[in-house]
Amino acid sequence: MSKQRGKFISLEGSEGVGKTTSLNFVREYIESQGHRVVVTREPGGTPLAEDLRNILLSNRQEQVDPDAELLMMFAARSQHVNTLIKPALDNGDWVLCDRFTDATFAYQGGGRGISVDRIAEIEQWTLAGFEPDMTILLDMSVEEGMARTRKRGKPDRFETEKLDFYEKIRAAYLQRARKYSDRIKVIDAAPDIATVQASLRLALREFC
Amino acid sequence: MSKQRGKFISLEGSEGVGKTTSLNFVREYIESQGHRVVVTREPGGTPLAEDLRNILLSNRQEQVDPDAELLMMFAARSQHVNTLIKPALDNGDWVLCDRFTDATFAYQGGGRGISVDRIAEIEQWTLAGFEPDMTILLDMSVEEGMARTRKRGKPDRFETEKLDFYEKIRAAYLQRARKYSDRIKVIDAAPDIATVQASLRLALREFC
Repeated sequence: MSKQRGKFISLEGSEGVGKTTSLNFVREYIESQGHRVVVTREPGGTPLAEDLRNILLSNRQEQVDPDAELLMMFAARSQHVNTLIKPALDNGDWVLCDRFTDATFAYQGGGRGISVDRIAEIEQWTLAGFEPDMTILLDMSVEEGMARTRKRGKPDRFETEKLDFYEKIRAAYLQRARKYSDRIKVIDAAPDIATVQASLRLALREFC
Repeated sequence: MSKQRGKFISLEGSEGVGKTTSLNFVREYIESQGHRVVVTREPGGTPLAEDLRNILLSNRQEQVDPDAELLMMFAARSQHVNTLIKPALDNGDWVLCDRFTDATFAYQGGGRGISVDRIAEIEQWTLAGFEPDMTILLDMSVEEGMARTRKRGKPDRFETEKLDFYEKIRAAYLQRARKYSDRIKVIDAAPDIATVQASLRLALREFC
């Protein structure tokens, strides 16, 4: 019996949008439809890629070159895609990933100012067109997201960046959502959990 | 008084060719000509790049994706070039680097089988034509180099690869030396130290 290839879903959004809660909801929904789900995250997902994540997220005195940061992101992604995501999909599992390439366009592009064309070159080199079958973008105002984040623990290097940085990230995410409207579903993450989950259920029902 | 830009020299060669001894000799020669010399190495040279070096050289159970390895190499290189090498050259210092991009074409290209064109794409993206003013390639037979290496400590991940791997690396190095004969000076590293240093002195005299 030949296996049907699994689907690849990514979940995107800036700080404080409730990604973890939504991730659990999406996983449970897909499982309820009878699919096995591999839950993973970026940067990371394999021991090597998690080592790179630690380098990327650590507060360091050294100024990090934006191109170096981008290349590290895609190094982690290449390892993740080729050794975990693709084998899981080939095995018939669904893969649910906390952030993927859209995050790189949002953070390293919108946030750090690397041009979309330059990121797209490395994306093409690394992934050759591989992308999520569906992406859920959780969106809310930066002020609201930041307020929710502040209730948590010690901020990492990215989280200590200023408000303006997050405005650019949100704008870059929404720009991609307009450009890839077939793949990227924007969910308003500002309302109460029940309302957000109703929106997620609606988006997933069309897809699963 | 405006500073004259320093020169960038890289030293290349496979395992056991006596790179460390030659590096010290080259540094002393350049200093004897009245230049300040910054000695550095790849992968590495900055704290972030050294963290990447540790990931690259560690023995790990996980199979390392060749593309991920290449992207990590260029991430470390981008950090090294933009935060250490270029500022030093602009400051009038000379930079002497233990391995640079030629090593990537030799190890990830010749050794791991990534195509020259694919490496050249990432090289162009990252460095936009930046290269050493002069490269010294220390060359000897793989058998001799391996025999000299075995006298040292515990081998790292690269050093435990098989003989065939090193033959491919040597061939890739020599191919680049033929292609870029103006920049890359091949030094026969097999004879005694005095003879090798006489060859180095001759190459450097034309350049310094």
